[in-house]
Amino acid sequence: MEQIKCIGVLTSGGDAPGMNAAIRAVTRTAIYHGFTVKGIRRGYKGLITGDIVGMESQSVSNIIQLGGTILKSARCKEFCTPEGRKLAYENMQAAGIDALVVIGGDGSIKGAGEFASEYNIPVVALPGTIDNDLGGTDATIGYDSALNTIMEAVDKLRDTASSHERLFFVEVMGHTAGYLALNGAIASGAEAAIVPEMETEVDQLAELINNGFRKSKNSAIVLVAENPKTGGAIGLAERVKKEFPQYDARVTILGHLQRGGSPTSLDRILASRLGEAAIEAFMEGQRNVMIGVRNSQLVYVPFSKAIRHNKGINRTYLDLVKILSI
Amino acid sequence: MEQIKCIGVLTSGGDAPGMNAAIRAVTRTAIYHGFTVKGIRRGYKGLITGDIVGMESQSVSNIIQLGGTILKSARCKEFCTPEGRKLAYENMQAAGIDALVVIGGDGSIKGAGEFASEYNIPVVALPGTIDNDLGGTDATIGYDSALNTIMEAVDKLRDTASSHERLFFVEVMGHTAGYLALNGAIASGAEAAIVPEMETEVDQLAELINNGFRKSKNSAIVLVAENPKTGGAIGLAERVKKEFPQYDARVTILGHLQRGGSPTSLDRILASRLGEAAIEAFMEGQRNVMIGVRNSQLVYVPFSKAIRHNKGINRTYLDLVKILSI
Amino acid sequence: MEQIKCIGVLTSGGDAPGMNAAIRAVTRTAIYHGFTVKGIRRGYKGLITGDIVGMESQSVSNIIQLGGTILKSARCKEFCTPEGRKLAYENMQAAGIDALVVIGGDGSIKGAGEFASEYNIPVVALPGTIDNDLGGTDATIGYDSALNTIMEAVDKLRDTASSHERLFFVEVMGHTAGYLALNGAIASGAEAAIVPEMETEVDQLAELINNGFRKSKNSAIVLVAENPKTGGAIGLAERVKKEFPQYDARVTILGHLQRGGSPTSLDRILASRLGEAAIEAFMEGQRNVMIGVRNSQLVYVPFSKAIRHNKGINRTYLDLVKILSI
Amino acid sequence: MEQIKCIGVLTSGGDAPGMNAAIRAVTRTAIYHGFTVKGIRRGYKGLITGDIVGMESQSVSNIIQLGGTILKSARCKEFCTPEGRKLAYENMQAAGIDALVVIGGDGSIKGAGEFASEYNIPVVALPGTIDNDLGGTDATIGYDSALNTIMEAVDKLRDTASSHERLFFVEVMGHTAGYLALNGAIASGAEAAIVPEMETEVDQLAELINNGFRKSKNSAIVLVAENPKTGGAIGLAERVKKEFPQYDARVTILGHLQRGGSPTSLDRILASRLGEAAIEAFMEGQRNVMIGVRNSQLVYVPFSKAIRHNKGINRTYLDLVKILSI
Repeated sequence: MEQIKCIGVLTSGGDAPGMNAAIRAVTRTAIYHGFTVKGIRRGYKGLITGDIVGMESQSVSNIIQLGGTILKSARCKEFCTPEGRKLAYENMQAAGIDALVVIGGDGSIKGAGEFASEYNIPVVALPGTIDNDLGGTDATIGYDSALNTIMEAVDKLRDTASSHERLFFVEVMGHTAGYLALNGAIASGAEAAIVPEMETEVDQLAELINNGFRKSKNSAIVLVAENPKTGGAIGLAERVKKEFPQYDARVTILGHLQRGGSPTSLDRILASRLGEAAIEAFMEGQRNVMIGVRNSQLVYVPFSKAIRHNKGINRTYLDLVKILSI
Repeated sequence: MEQIKCIGVLTSGGDAPGMNAAIRAVTRTAIYHGFTVKGIRRGYKGLITGDIVGMESQSVSNIIQLGGTILKSARCKEFCTPEGRKLAYENMQAAGIDALVVIGGDGSIKGAGEFASEYNIPVVALPGTIDNDLGGTDATIGYDSALNTIMEAVDKLRDTASSHERLFFVEVMGHTAGYLALNGAIASGAEAAIVPEMETEVDQLAELINNGFRKSKNSAIVLVAENPKTGGAIGLAERVKKEFPQYDARVTILGHLQRGGSPTSLDRILASRLGEAAIEAFMEGQRNVMIGVRNSQLVYVPFSKAIRHNKGINRTYLDLVKILSI
Repeated sequence: MEQIKCIGVLTSGGDAPGMNAAIRAVTRTAIYHGFTVKGIRRGYKGLITGDIVGMESQSVSNIIQLGGTILKSARCKEFCTPEGRKLAYENMQAAGIDALVVIGGDGSIKGAGEFASEYNIPVVALPGTIDNDLGGTDATIGYDSALNTIMEAVDKLRDTASSHERLFFVEVMGHTAGYLALNGAIASGAEAAIVPEMETEVDQLAELINNGFRKSKNSAIVLVAENPKTGGAIGLAERVKKEFPQYDARVTILGHLQRGGSPTSLDRILASRLGEAAIEAFMEGQRNVMIGVRNSQLVYVPFSKAIRHNKGINRTYLDLVKILSI
Repeated sequence: MEQIKCIGVLTSGGDAPGMNAAIRAVTRTAIYHGFTVKGIRRGYKGLITGDIVGMESQSVSNIIQLGGTILKSARCKEFCTPEGRKLAYENMQAAGIDALVVIGGDGSIKGAGEFASEYNIPVVALPGTIDNDLGGTDATIGYDSALNTIMEAVDKLRDTASSHERLFFVEVMGHTAGYLALNGAIASGAEAAIVPEMETEVDQLAELINNGFRKSKNSAIVLVAENPKTGGAIGLAERVKKEFPQYDARVTILGHLQRGGSPTSLDRILASRLGEAAIEAFMEGQRNVMIGVRNSQLVYVPFSKAIRHNKGINRTYLDLVKILSI
């Protein structure tokens, strides 16, 4: 560890609110402990193209509240190739970067793992994704913010006239995971969540309609995870038109706005703690781990475990949605 | 006028934020001046079904900030028939209602006009619609709130990674008018607005792309009015896929959430002033007018002029969008 | 347990965002399982005055997003007397209420404990307070919302001109606990938090100023817990005027607005889970416990442990504020 | 006019949300029409110290939504002296700036006028102040945003338990004008506004209390303009303690947070239009005017008229507050 002098930091993959708070914490904690810090722009792409900037304490002033990431994020196909990673390594060497903090989701952590093992570079990853689909951690930076964004959208939707026989489908993100749809449904008091985890077991749309959904009224708000398994909001609206023509279906697609917005306090505090912990991990000689949080405690998670997401959906939460929408 | 003792109030058509502030102002101003007030639920439908409730000062406590309408709104086909209006009149008589305040958009005002002339009832209308598509008034209750809702959504979208060659289409409401799309584009700093008013003149999508849109970067946020003339966000994304396959198009459809949310201060103040003016109009012997606001002054607008929307789109605003997104 | 047929629910003490979500979950889960539900208004006061209303599923429609509490809350001195509790018991009997769900903070839970033991009534409490100062639970309903309210206020403050030599004191709530001040400081990127837990050890204001606080600039935002030990924002501003006249101190006092506002998704989900668990606790024969959450799991906490708050302040968080504001 | 090649832009005085939108519009419109643009930092102070930066189209990317001002603002005493203005002129010459756009309030416009007349420099001012206290214009950049910030704070306050005999004083800004207090009271449904304009006529606090304020309940929210004439929230709370001890008074002081936050759509659109108009004014040969908006039309306002604020308070609005809080 004693040889680490300069730490590089990058954000990779889909944006998540709180990434800036993480960059700020990484940068200032590193400077506080005497390291030099360099920011790599546009994720791994910036390593490959050498788009690297020096970071001072002021570089991260007044960013904790901003959505997006000041270092820009990107998905980078070149980095999936040995040639790409070689270029990345050379640029990293040229810039004098000894160690890397990677903030991103499963693809980014997978890439970090390959890079670290090929070139023997100390890498620490921070879980940064709105999808909450990483193993070994209870929470990921951005998830709480996205959940609140979804909830606020549904709050507005609920205000509008409760016309009869109307189904409102709200499509939300979540990659392969139904967390945003399911927890968004609980938080917003929606009548149902349609999630990919359940699609093989049961026809969730048919079940919803055949059960007469909410007995006390004849309209419903349904959160739908964007996923081929669910068909998405458009797909479900088309099914309703054909199979349940007595209902009028309306569609809201939140899209990329779920990745933006000012982060919530939970995400900012999480990002601040994780960012500090990343630097402390290097100081303790740790490498090639993701910092996670389990039962409020920070933990080191091997990359292999972090990218193996198998938390599954909590079925008692599906029941809770039903009970609370009677 | 001296015979008016009991004033009925209803909200009709699509919800608009600020309708509750208007109900509150109508109710309290009427009570302040000695009138009795009755609330009619679900718009004209409540007149037809006799769904009418007494309104006290406390009935409108703590509602100024709520989206939607405590009286519920609806579109009502029966009221378009002579039989429906006859039923409505009979229920109104039975409930002892002498005069009516109707809060709604053009369809609602048209219905109010027919009803008023058939049965010689004093009616005052308040412009309540997010679309701002009424004649004789600079502003309608709900427009400013919807505009801010749209803007905040685009703000979040703008945070996300500015990937190359990507077009974000955000579909907004507006009925036949492009105000929400155009002013939403200015307010959010979007690269373009695609509005129904221009569709016959020029292929707005082709123009946007062929002009290389924003020269300084290769992605763009485009606000699209939901309207058959524009094709909507989905239609435009499909056109991009076919005609401009070098671009990756992503879709956000805000949908009915634009009709909800807590009203802005402008909408609440407007609704409060208009609500007070509705009662004062009755006291001045006015009838069968919409209260409008022109150059900050309250004015009486004949129904025939209110429903003839021909404000058109301000072309200098289209230019402004272009200049400001260089 | 078999004798419980009718469950009463009340909110007590200071308002906390999410109380409505808890009322909704208690009511609907109880109805789902076949219980009758009655709402008691204005906390224990409503028991004493017999202000009790029947609750149906629709009674809690469309309230999950509302701040405050539809049942109203109050502090009630009469309930601290044996005479008051006797009256309360008699009214409870008269209303046919067999068991009670109390949503509130330490004073409310203390009262619940006395009442339960005197009259042998099954009582379950839910932790409802923005102060997060209850034992046996990691979180309380309302804390996350209040934290976000504080953070958003400081975000706005940070936007304003960073004049030289200026100290902004923002006074926040927290009762005897510094959580809101300390976590608010981390979340908002403030330069310091002045909390009651530290006041006996060190002169926090002197330390802040003598250390030159943030070296890179000469102004600072300081979150101050409202507490005699800290002196509050006004007290500190007066000290600055006398002891450090080179600084210009400005004061923001957030006051009761911290108790209001729409709850965050975390508070709504927490309240929904706790509300469901309250009814399940009765069904399992539990009584006289608070439902808490530890390491994401719901737990039963004896009243005596719930009101003994000794979580203390996390000193590593005080360090984190300093490191991240370099 | 033909000699103008390079336009300088600065923000001066207290921050106002929308100043960044104005900087963006000035910069891009100028570049669009072929001018060079330079940004002067920290208001007139930057002219005196030569803190001047080149502005490109990208310099103002992604700032329309940000509160504060990227050019920083300041009040500058040196600029009130002939020596200060001489230095400013010399730096302006050295930087090659031919004309100046000043965004600020009355003090800033007064300074602009003196500077322009002394050194024969073309200056255009834009009204940028949350106080709305400028002559010749219906609106100022930042006023609508501050009004919404105040309203949202009072919305949260209103959620909390309506205890008996309690007065909530919320102190808001406004300089010598009561607009924010009065319109904030209408927008938030507060029971009263205490404004400097009325203080010489009547004891507003005594009137409020002696009239039993809101008959239907015994607590009230009162918006108080921060001004020696009103005594401020603290002063009024102290008066209540002495003169009306039966009431419990609570204080919220919003302070500088009213100057921050993301601007509303109205402020962004206003700022965009005014910014465009500033450049067009130079192109039309105009100089030494403020761009105002009257009845939705842009107008040129002589500096002398702009700084003579005498719009007064609208007394019908004071009546409206009373009527609507019965």
